[in-house]
Formats: sequence, C-alpha cells, structure tokens
Amino acid sequence: MVKVGIIGATGYAGKELVNILAGHEKVKISYLASHSYQGMIYSDVYPSFYGIEDDELKEDDIVKAANESDVIFLTLPHSLSSQLVTKEIIKDKIVIDLGADFRLKDKNVYEAWYKCEHKGESLLNEAVYGLPEIHREEIKKAHLIANPGCYTTCSILTLYPLVKNHLIKTESIIIDAKSGVSGAGRGAKIDNIFCEVNESVKAYSVTTHRHTPEIEQELSYAAGNDIKLTFTPHLIPMQRGILATCYASLISGVTEKDIKMAYEEAYNNEVFVRLTPYLPQTRFTKGTNFVDISFKVDERTGRIVAIGALDNLIKGAAGQAVENMNIALGYDESLSLKRIALI
Amino acid sequence: MVKVGIIGATGYAGKELVNILAGHEKVKISYLASHSYQGMIYSDVYPSFYGIEDDELKEDDIVKAANESDVIFLTLPHSLSSQLVTKEIIKDKIVIDLGADFRLKDKNVYEAWYKCEHKGESLLNEAVYGLPEIHREEIKKAHLIANPGCYTTCSILTLYPLVKNHLIKTESIIIDAKSGVSGAGRGAKIDNIFCEVNESVKAYSVTTHRHTPEIEQELSYAAGNDIKLTFTPHLIPMQRGILATCYASLISGVTEKDIKMAYEEAYNNEVFVRLTPYLPQTRFTKGTNFVDISFKVDERTGRIVAIGALDNLIKGAAGQAVENMNIALGYDESLSLKRIALI
Amino acid sequence: MVKVGIIGATGYAGKELVNILAGHEKVKISYLASHSYQGMIYSDVYPSFYGIEDDELKEDDIVKAANESDVIFLTLPHSLSSQLVTKEIIKDKIVIDLGADFRLKDKNVYEAWYKCEHKGESLLNEAVYGLPEIHREEIKKAHLIANPGCYTTCSILTLYPLVKNHLIKTESIIIDAKSGVSGAGRGAKIDNIFCEVNESVKAYSVTTHRHTPEIEQELSYAAGNDIKLTFTPHLIPMQRGILATCYASLISGVTEKDIKMAYEEAYNNEVFVRLTPYLPQTRFTKGTNFVDISFKVDERTGRIVAIGALDNLIKGAAGQAVENMNIALGYDESLSLKRIALI
Amino acid sequence: MVKVGIIGATGYAGKELVNILAGHEKVKISYLASHSYQGMIYSDVYPSFYGIEDDELKEDDIVKAANESDVIFLTLPHSLSSQLVTKEIIKDKIVIDLGADFRLKDKNVYEAWYKCEHKGESLLNEAVYGLPEIHREEIKKAHLIANPGCYTTCSILTLYPLVKNHLIKTESIIIDAKSGVSGAGRGAKIDNIFCEVNESVKAYSVTTHRHTPEIEQELSYAAGNDIKLTFTPHLIPMQRGILATCYASLISGVTEKDIKMAYEEAYNNEVFVRLTPYLPQTRFTKGTNFVDISFKVDERTGRIVAIGALDNLIKGAAGQAVENMNIALGYDESLSLKRIALI
Repeated sequence: MVKVGIIGATGYAGKELVNILAGHEKVKISYLASHSYQGMIYSDVYPSFYGIEDDELKEDDIVKAANESDVIFLTLPHSLSSQLVTKEIIKDKIVIDLGADFRLKDKNVYEAWYKCEHKGESLLNEAVYGLPEIHREEIKKAHLIANPGCYTTCSILTLYPLVKNHLIKTESIIIDAKSGVSGAGRGAKIDNIFCEVNESVKAYSVTTHRHTPEIEQELSYAAGNDIKLTFTPHLIPMQRGILATCYASLISGVTEKDIKMAYEEAYNNEVFVRLTPYLPQTRFTKGTNFVDISFKVDERTGRIVAIGALDNLIKGAAGQAVENMNIALGYDESLSLKRIALI
Repeated sequence: MVKVGIIGATGYAGKELVNILAGHEKVKISYLASHSYQGMIYSDVYPSFYGIEDDELKEDDIVKAANESDVIFLTLPHSLSSQLVTKEIIKDKIVIDLGADFRLKDKNVYEAWYKCEHKGESLLNEAVYGLPEIHREEIKKAHLIANPGCYTTCSILTLYPLVKNHLIKTESIIIDAKSGVSGAGRGAKIDNIFCEVNESVKAYSVTTHRHTPEIEQELSYAAGNDIKLTFTPHLIPMQRGILATCYASLISGVTEKDIKMAYEEAYNNEVFVRLTPYLPQTRFTKGTNFVDISFKVDERTGRIVAIGALDNLIKGAAGQAVENMNIALGYDESLSLKRIALI
Repeated sequence: MVKVGIIGATGYAGKELVNILAGHEKVKISYLASHSYQGMIYSDVYPSFYGIEDDELKEDDIVKAANESDVIFLTLPHSLSSQLVTKEIIKDKIVIDLGADFRLKDKNVYEAWYKCEHKGESLLNEAVYGLPEIHREEIKKAHLIANPGCYTTCSILTLYPLVKNHLIKTESIIIDAKSGVSGAGRGAKIDNIFCEVNESVKAYSVTTHRHTPEIEQELSYAAGNDIKLTFTPHLIPMQRGILATCYASLISGVTEKDIKMAYEEAYNNEVFVRLTPYLPQTRFTKGTNFVDISFKVDERTGRIVAIGALDNLIKGAAGQAVENMNIALGYDESLSLKRIALI
Repeated sequence: MVKVGIIGATGYAGKELVNILAGHEKVKISYLASHSYQGMIYSDVYPSFYGIEDDELKEDDIVKAANESDVIFLTLPHSLSSQLVTKEIIKDKIVIDLGADFRLKDKNVYEAWYKCEHKGESLLNEAVYGLPEIHREEIKKAHLIANPGCYTTCSILTLYPLVKNHLIKTESIIIDAKSGVSGAGRGAKIDNIFCEVNESVKAYSVTTHRHTPEIEQELSYAAGNDIKLTFTPHLIPMQRGILATCYASLISGVTEKDIKMAYEEAYNNEVFVRLTPYLPQTRFTKGTNFVDISFKVDERTGRIVAIGALDNLIKGAAGQAVENMNIALGYDESLSLKRIALI
C-alpha cells in the first residue's frame, strides 16, 4: 500500500480527498493534518466519517508528513505551499498541490493576480500542470503536480479542442461560469451563510478572478499564441457543481462537423470526459470525476456556445488530484474514481 | 374603484397579479378566470389566499371579462391572446397582455420564432410595448399593452443606455441569463419537479429562446440599426429572480465615466431602476418591482460586463403589468408596488 | 407620525422591523441602532434597502433612542434588555422587546433555563406578554411588551384552545417543531453556512430549548394548572417559516366537533389566525403575519395532531411586534401587516 | 457473476439500484425493465448514466426477467407485485420486492390501509421481511424478500431496542418523521414541482400513512404485544434523507444506562447502524447505507426522544435491497455498499 498524507484535510477539498482515498484499494492514509483542527478527531469535525476515519488530526508540517508518506496532498491557502515544498521533499516523494502556487508558469503573472510575492520560484520548472487530458505524459514522471482549479478545469477542457484546432477567434472568448457554494470554502463568513446565499444568484470577482490567468495560460499554450479572455464566475444556491458557458466567434468556414471532429479527436479516448448528446447539467456529474461537454452553433451570429459541467470538488479538485496520483504511480487512472452521480 | 379582470389567474404570473391587485387601493378584482381550474375557489388552488380571495374561478371568456371589467389582464400561452383580443374590446377597455403575441412588431419574426401563424396582425399597430422606462408616453394612451417578457425586461434595461448612446459594438452583444424555476411555469412536467431541478444548473433553449427577437427589436430600435445578439438562458435552483450578465466590446475611446453618465441619464428619474454601487443579486429585488443594474469595465479585453437583476414574476411580469395599468390610468406609477425584498 | 427607534436593527428580526415600519403609514423611523455595524449606512449592510433606508446606524444606546422616539423596539441577545430598560424610560415611552428577558414571569425559571442572572426583576410585573390573541386587553395599556418567541407563538396558538377548554390531557403534550434557518440568526458560524445546512434536517437543543418554559407558562395559565411538556426543534433547509406539529391525548369523550368549536370560539374574530381547511404549509404564511392552524384526530390512538404554521420573522417576531405597537397605540391592529404570501 | 434484473428501473429507487448494482463486483445487470419508458435507452432517461448504462429498457414482464436473471428486484406501485410473483418463479430465483405487497403478514391489515384486495395471499408465508438487523437469519434462506419502506426502516431501527427490552410504554409511541422529496417518487404532479415544495414544510397523510401498520407489525413482534402508535410524515425541501424523531414515555425506573446498553447490545455488531455521539443529521448518511441513531432522556417529562436518520433511497430502499441480496447469496453484506456521505 502506498502511504498518503493530506495537509489541509478539513476543508471541503481535503474532506473529499479523505473520502476518495479511504476507498482506494492501493492506498493507506498515513498522515492527516489540519491547521484549524489539529488535535481533534477527524470524525468530530466531519461526523459523516464516524466509524470510518476516526484518527486524530496532526500538525500541518510537511516534513513530518513526508516522513510518514509516499504521496503528500496539499490543500492550503495560496502562498503557503510555495513556502513549504522543497527540492528535498520532492526528490523522493510526490507532492500534489491543490492550491494555486505552482499552476502559473510565470511568477510575474502570479504576483500580479495574487497580489503577493511568490516564494518558491525555483520549483516552478519542476511543477507539472495536472490536467491529465493535456499533460498526461508529463504527469507520469512528475514529483510536483499543480492540480488545476475548479473553474479552470471546466473552462479549459470545454475550450481546448476549439483553440488547439484553430476553430475560433481566440480574442472573442467569453466564459460565464456558475458554481455551487462549496467553491467558496468552509469559512464562517456571513456571505456564506444559508440565508445570504439561498434563493439568489450573483456574479462576483467580475474581471478579477484569479482563475483567469490559469485558463489563459493553458489555452495560449494550446493555441500557440497569447490569449486574453473574459471570465465571470457566479454563485449558485447549490452545494456543488460548476457549469461553464463558453462563447466564441467561429473562424469563417468552420462547420459544426469540424467542431465535432475536434472534440472527438481530443476526448474519445478519455475516460473522464463525456461528449454528451444532451446539454450538460451539473447534477449529471455530481459526486463523479466526469466532465460533460456539449455545444451549439448559433448560425445567426456566427458563434459557438460550448458548455462544460463538472463537480467542483471531484474533477475540479480532489478527484483530479487522485487521478494525478494514479497516473504518477502508474495505476489505472480511474482507481477509486468510478462513481455515478446520485441524483 | 376601477374593475379589473384576469384571464389566466392560476399560473404563477396570474397569481402574482391577484396578489398585487388585491392590495391596490384603487382597484377591485371583478373577474378571475382560469382554463384549468374553472369552477374552483381561488384559495383552493392557492391556499395562501385563504380568507383573502375566495371567489370562484370563471370561464376564460374575454367578452364576459370585458363586460365586468375596465382593465383586463391576459396571461395565456402564446397564440391565444391574438385570437381573443378584438378592436371592439380595446375601444372601451384596456387590455394588458402578459403573453408574447403583441410584443413583436414584425409578424414574420413572430412566426419564425414561435413556429405558428399570428392571427391578430391587424392589432399589432395598436399594441404598445409596455416597458415604461422606454415607452412611457405611448403607454399613457394605450389600450392594448404588450407586457414584456421577464428575460427581456432585464436584458433590455441593462443594455439600453449602452446601445442608445453608441458606447458598445452592437454586433458583440452576448447575454448570459439565469432564471429561477417559476419562469418555467406551473406545469406538471418531470423537468420541473424538485428532484430534477434542485442542486443543479443547466442552460436551455441555447440559440433558440423566444425572448431573443424581443430583445433584438427593442435594442435595434434604441440603436437605430439592426442588432443580432446571442442570448443563453439558464435554470437556477431557486424560485424567483433573473440575473442577466451582459457582455459587449466597448467602442474605442469610451470611458467608464461615459458609461456611468449614460446610465444615470437614462434612469436617474426612474423609480424602479436602481443603479447600484454593489453588484446586483436577485435576492435584493425579490418580491419587488425593482431592476438593479451595475457594471464593470474589463480593461484587459476592452469589454463591459453589465449586470441586471429583477424578480421575474414582478418587474418581469405582474408588477410591470400593474405599473403599466397605473400609467395608462393616470395613477401614481408605483401604486401597490412599493415593496422591499424580504430577505 | 409616531417616531420609532430600533436597537438591534441589523439582525434578521431587526431588518424585518425596518421593512414593515418603512411602509407603515403612521410611523416614522427615527433611530436605527446596531452594535456590530454602528456608523455604517443601513443599505450597505442590507443592499435590498438601497434607495429606501440609507440612514447611518447609530449607537445602541436606549436613552438616546428614547430621546428621539415614542416607541422603541429592542432585538438583543438575552440578558441585555433587562439591563437597559428602566422605569424612567417606560414612563413616557413604549418599549417592545423582541428578546427573552421579560417573557417569563418567574425569575427563577428564567435563570434556570438561561443560565444567567436576571437583572431587571423589578420590571417583570410591568411587562405584558405580547400575544394579542390572549393578552390583547393588557397590551392596550402596556408600556413594556415582551414580544413572544417564534416557536412559542406558533406552539401556544396551536394548543391554546385545546388546553383552555380542557380537551386534552395536559401531561401528554409533545411539540415537534421545524424552523427555517433565519431562526438561527445572522451569525457567521460554520453551523449556519450553506453547505452545512442545505439538503439536511436535524433536531437540536433536544430537551433543553429555551422556548419550552415560555410555552409552558402560557399554556399553564390557560389551563389553570401546571404543565410540563416536551418540545423538540428541528432545522429545515429553508430561509423562513415554522411548522409546529403538536401531539396530545384527548380527554375521554371529546369529539372532533368539540375541538372544532373550541378553535372557532378562540379565533373566529382574530384577523391573523386562520383555521384552514387544508393542512398548513409554511409557504402559505411566508412574508405574512398569519398563523395557519388545522388538526386531525387519530381515532386509533385517541390523540389529536394539531398543526400550526407561521413566518418566524413576521408573526414569530417583527410582525407581531408591530401588531403589538398598533394595539398599544390604538391603531388598526393590521396596519402595515396586510400581506399575502409570495409563493 | 450473478445475473440481476430490475423491473421498475426508472423510478428513483430503481435508478439507485442500477447505480449500486453497476458497481457491484459479483453482479451483472441482465434485464432492465420500465413500464413508462420501455424501448428507450436507459441513459436517455437518466443522462448521468451516459457511457455507463446505455442498454435499452425492456418490457416489465417478470417471467422474461426471470429467464435472464438469478435475482429480480421489483420496484412497482402497490398491488402489482402480488399479482406478478408466483411460486414457480421463486422456486429457482430470488425476488426482492421494494414495494409494499409482501411486507404485512396480515392480509386484512393490508387491505384496510391500502384500500384494495391482496391477490398474492398464498405467498405471504414465503415472504421474509427484509430488515437484516432483525431478520438476518431468515433472509439467508429467503426466496421472496419484502424490502421494508423508507420511513419504516428508520422508525423500526430507532425504536427496536427500546421495545424489545421493555424500556418504554408502548402505548405512548409517537413518531414524527421528515423526508426529502425523492420519497414522493418521480411523478409529474404539481405537488412535486420545485416551486410548490421548495422553501416550505408540511405534514401529510396525518393519521393515515401506510407505513404505520408496517412499523406497528415489527415493533409488536419485538415487544411481544400489540402496539398502536401515531406516525406523522413531513415533506422537507431536500432531495433525500429521512429523520425520524421518536417519542415515548420511559417505564418507571429505566435509566439512561439501561437504554445505552440496549442499543449497544442490539447494534454493536451491525455494520450499517451507527450509534452516534452526535445528534443525527440526514446529510451524514446521504448516499450511504448507514442508519445513524442517538437519543436524549427528558428527565422533566420522563420521556425519551430517540432520533434516527438514513438515506431514504439507500438504506430506505435500494441499498437495503442489495444488502438483502448480498445476505441471501452468502456474500459479504456490505458489497458495493461501502460509501461515505459526500457532504
């Protein structure tokens, strides 16, 4: 059994990791750490784990975690992982960081969007962007994996075949995304309480959301040119799920058939991307590692409307992190990830 | 007291009309009709009206309604009102149609989007598009008022000052709208049941929603040129509310100050449009006749993101219908419409 | 215009007071105070009030409030009002306390359930329990009104006619109550955040909820003997509303007709109690000052199941407080309270 | 691989069966039938199964199903299974009926509560009540298993140790249960649509719910005397989950320790019953086969309040059905049922 540690095990993504890893046939959880709940029993924080994971939460110390683990998952506020991870640690161990610190290749872009200094620059070259559908070969050999953000995974996978195959005008891309409330984390903030969120919709971080440069980086890489796009996230009164409605103008002459072929070429061999005959709904992916993608061409305006859906805590976080671990360890990519949406 | 009749009183918009009109100091409800529930007591259909509106529902016959009313509200499936309303009726009475039949000036456009013949062409010229912020002077004299759709009211009012003042490239307009489930009506369809809607988001009628030509008509009228745009509605797990996130490329040289001035010029004297310092959330308008509007400029891409929010059943339907009645009868426009959102 | 002050205007009950009083034709809000948000603009705390109530929040000082007001509403954590209110203040002014401090006539009972000393004992005799259906005559002359709790209003009104008319065995009473999340207040606690509340039900404060002695006091008073009962509150994933399902064994020989007559005698002249032919649902009372009550006799077990529903923030708090003010000032009891549930 | 058929595969319980059985390592789904959707592809009815279960739905013919299956699950409206199942079929095959027809041992009780004739009386003796915690030994040898109802499973398991050990006065039992909307099935009824269910609570079938005699039968069996109790179900605005709050008067002298011991004796070896140190919440069991149970003693009134929680579609239906299959086939009881609640 491979030993895995989780630092930041009591946030929603951390909890989802424990859920998935507790049922993983080749894995044993060896180190569970939490900054806020250190010393508490895990099932006292999350009673759904009563009788399943009743260990005590340890110190959020990556060296101690590394001593007891082969793989370490980090789910930390930004700027922390880049201070914790060292070359020493990733020599022998695999670190999978669910935070933002190693996702952006350009330190300056990171500092501009995150408004803070990046303290782990020397590791940026080691880090592999953990989106298996695009970077699987690199992930196989990686020791430091930057697990993509939730909005980013959904947006990139929905747009990737269009951009890579030069089917759309890249300066016309607009992504209007909708997320469930778990995306806001488990913080005790008034903005998160039931009566302030339920029965309402809002946009937030308009023009300034930090997933924007991450999407731009990967799509630019696919296109071979620099892309700037508009990304607007919205908060939806539901617990989990992201829907990304993506708009772009088609390049003249591109047909629906071209688009269909591009998607099929990109994803026909992918186990977790479903090109669906129906328009995606987040509930069809809830609790699973699937991304559902579909599209419509608007002949009147020459645009494509491409829609992707996923579970922000699974394919958008913990599921993809375990998928990355499976790849890096040479396991079947879908180990412990074969789930079907409940309702 | 002015006598009012409602044909189609048992749908959600009809119910909202009864709610607002029951508290209107200058109005007496004289005729309540329903196709599906004729003969039943109103409060047996909607128990919240127990002790308040316990009358029997009558036949959905516009002539009988006209005999007993000065103002008649129609909330009917499309293609019905255009068969019911006659020149005879609107000679003496005021008809306010909450359906689609008299909204589009061009019969051909109607028939292309609604896939059926328009049978009341002769009345199209009589009909006034009932959006007070744009057509108030015409509404004052109107006898046939086409009450705008819910998505349309929100979308048009959010974009109107931008289009009218030539601040955006009109070919770049994209509207991504989110609606509560009451917008789907009170039909007993599996798609509407709780377990199929809750905890999920989906887009629907992508590229084909019938509110599209209505938005295009009014914005084209404001711009002075023909506009084609992309409109995508989404279903949100909440009861009421619409948020329209509108995207457009700014015309070169346009500043944030220009935009602000255009909005203020258009709406500073409007009682039901609020230019809010905060980003709109549907809950701030719930149960009210307000439209809240705000915007952000995305310097990186040269776009504006303008966001409008309203209650689809009030400003998006019954509230605006009563507002139109108030205007047409020469009353204070906000009679019975001064409400504050509950939560 | 009567001048009213609100101390604690930014909790959910306070907000509801502002909502109702802002539309009250005989009232002017003269003093809005908040401990947490002093100095802020009201509509910055609650954007739904933008353009309606944009005053600055003042110090939560009851003397200052009294200087500028004829009526003062208090919505404070328990033990505070009893320290603030003085004989001096209630000589000229009317104080309506939405908290618990003046509800229980017996200081010892208060201290046993609230685990703290009661510091306003000398005023307990002045205080009138503000449940108009039972204490209207006293309220007319009161200067210190203890506004009942939300669960209590619903439970007492549902059981009162049964107890008063000796139709049930009082030792058999069990109240199983269900409340929306606004009942938990606007605190930034993890227990209140959307993802911890939504899609779940739980009981809480089992056998220890502080509304228990309040229900017992009023029912004992009605019965003429000492009553002890079991009260269990539950949290429901909705914003507002309380449903109280009340169980009791019928006294031998009592018929359904006896029960019906008792309810009608008690409530037929009440404007805010509806004896409904249908089983109550909280949504039929949402946003209104109504209590809906109905019952079933279980012949097999000799029990009655009586069910009451109300809006915890209206009849369960702010609405009833304004109703009390209307009574104390000699106004029509329903001024500013004639609302119909929205959906 | 054991071949399993499902008749009634498109209701919510049927869907849950497909979900669980699709991941069962010793099972192959051989026959999927639906009355309403015969001829359709399964994933067209439930798109979440796209790429997982894309078979065509067959005729709901039990003989055909039996020809292709070793185990047949039935999820049908009441009165149908008792007409379909024959001695012939259950000679070789195992039939697990998720409906009501074989649950009540007394035909007369069935006919009194279900208001229809029972047409399979001769099989009532063959049928085993499929509650493993009580009837495991019989289930091992059963060929016709009557899978318990959702409310019943929760109520019986919560009260069973109290009744069996004579700790409570059995004539005092009251069960106040709360269920998510999936319990109402997937019917296209107005009562089920989002806007009629959301943001509200109601009781229904007060004194008449058909799960009452089922609970009474099993508790009477445990107590050794005839029990009549009051059962009141409520509808909660959530998708899944049942919470049963059970009240009873303690027999004089019974202590909290006695109660604790009774629960531990009954359930300490049970894999799916958790005696929790916290009060149960339905979300802790969502998507799992667990029943969580806890209790409080109310010293003031001499009552116990015992609370149980489960997922109505898993332990309350499909999960327990698969558990029964596992037992009857001699498999590990928890095969394909080791899940942890998602949030």
